[in-house]
Amino acid sequence: MKLLNDHELEAALREIGAKHYHNLHPFHKMLHSGGCTREQVQAWALNRYYYQCSIPRKDALIVGRFPDAESRRAWRQRLVDHDGDAPGDGGIARWLRLATGVGLDAELVESCRAILPITRYAVDAYVSFVRERSLLEAVASSLTEMFSPTIISERVAGMLANYDFVDRDTLVYFNARLHQAPRDADFALNYVKTHARTVEQQQAALGALRFKCDLLWAQLDALYMAYVTPGMIPAGAFLSEALSLPVAA
Amino acid sequence: MKLLNDHELEAALREIGAKHYHNLHPFHKMLHSGGCTREQVQAWALNRYYYQCSIPRKDALIVGRFPDAESRRAWRQRLVDHDGDAPGDGGIARWLRLATGVGLDAELVESCRAILPITRYAVDAYVSFVRERSLLEAVASSLTEMFSPTIISERVAGMLANYDFVDRDTLVYFNARLHQAPRDADFALNYVKTHARTVEQQQAALGALRFKCDLLWAQLDALYMAYVTPGMIPAGAFLSEALSLPVAA
Repeated sequence: MKLLNDHELEAALREIGAKHYHNLHPFHKMLHSGGCTREQVQAWALNRYYYQCSIPRKDALIVGRFPDAESRRAWRQRLVDHDGDAPGDGGIARWLRLATGVGLDAELVESCRAILPITRYAVDAYVSFVRERSLLEAVASSLTEMFSPTIISERVAGMLANYDFVDRDTLVYFNARLHQAPRDADFALNYVKTHARTVEQQQAALGALRFKCDLLWAQLDALYMAYVTPGMIPAGAFLSEALSLPVAA
Repeated sequence: MKLLNDHELEAALREIGAKHYHNLHPFHKMLHSGGCTREQVQAWALNRYYYQCSIPRKDALIVGRFPDAESRRAWRQRLVDHDGDAPGDGGIARWLRLATGVGLDAELVESCRAILPITRYAVDAYVSFVRERSLLEAVASSLTEMFSPTIISERVAGMLANYDFVDRDTLVYFNARLHQAPRDADFALNYVKTHARTVEQQQAALGALRFKCDLLWAQLDALYMAYVTPGMIPAGAFLSEALSLPVAA
């Protein structure tokens, strides 16, 4: 392993995305190509809500770790984007609109009580990572946003074309993300290039992005295992009641 | 110890302020009554800067711990108040204006390299407390803001009356705090009343406020020991160079 220049470091980060980002996951392909049932789309929206509502918590941890007001101000915008400025505003509220738009009950979604245990483990691992690893790694783990415009385009176009229960209003969450994600990724990428000055730091940054790709992937694995493989929905999880399995309190 | 109703809990919190808030500290009395030299005022401003610039870091940790967007939004305003919306804006920048207004070099202040070790320990203890204790305790520890309008009034009036090197522009930091602190205290007090529902939780909240009063007090203790007691400025701290003591790199 050698010290990479800025160009090589960015190329190495993009290479991780090209191999490990969850746009390559079979569940994503099912979702955007119309291969999911309505219940599978619902399970995706319900589980993903837990990820969405954890994002500002991990971003606040990062804000709290920056030593300078300028970086805190820049990262603070993410809190505004996700939590909004008023009730019903912001990314979490827009994800809830998506979830209710595909037919879920808002209270069930917001309670997070019917998500898969693996969803919880993966998302909580992200929050812990950001709290416990170096600030450089915490920042680098956000760099999946470099890859998100592609997956968003595929997802929005595919879902609108293939599901009659999905319309533009349901997917309004993604509109804002198309400009927020590149802006956020630019700041984070610049931070990583500036602060990863040794081989060890560069490898740590690359490892952080790989970690993040893995945890996005694991969330789709969990959905696939529970909702595509027949008979595998855990008791207490979404739809288990409809299938007459025992439901945890 | 018994379960307190809302009125009794608030009274118990205010009682802690009445006994332990740093407006009772001899250094505060010196400061606002004109009993400090210019160098002592500078030492206060320099050391307090470390507290000021740590505040948004601890507030971001609290934002990251709230499970709901509404509380995060409310607490996020503190990040805006301290970090501002642009360079030169916000409470930290206004404290820097105070520090340079009393004759300090901005670079020296911002580096935090000349603060007293005890200042650092006390402030860092606050950030650790907020990270490690319960969310209720983290919120309760902010309740010294219930008492700050009084100390601000004493400080501003006293410093303007007693020091010819202090003017209104220097003390502009305190203008905003006079309305921010009560707003923040209202939210936090309401949160504590709502969430401290057992004897143990109420005692934890009271303990958290006592902890916070103690750490504000300890910061003035450190200033008093170093800058009022003759011959006690540690090597490497502000003014030690002027007094020909060895200065740490």
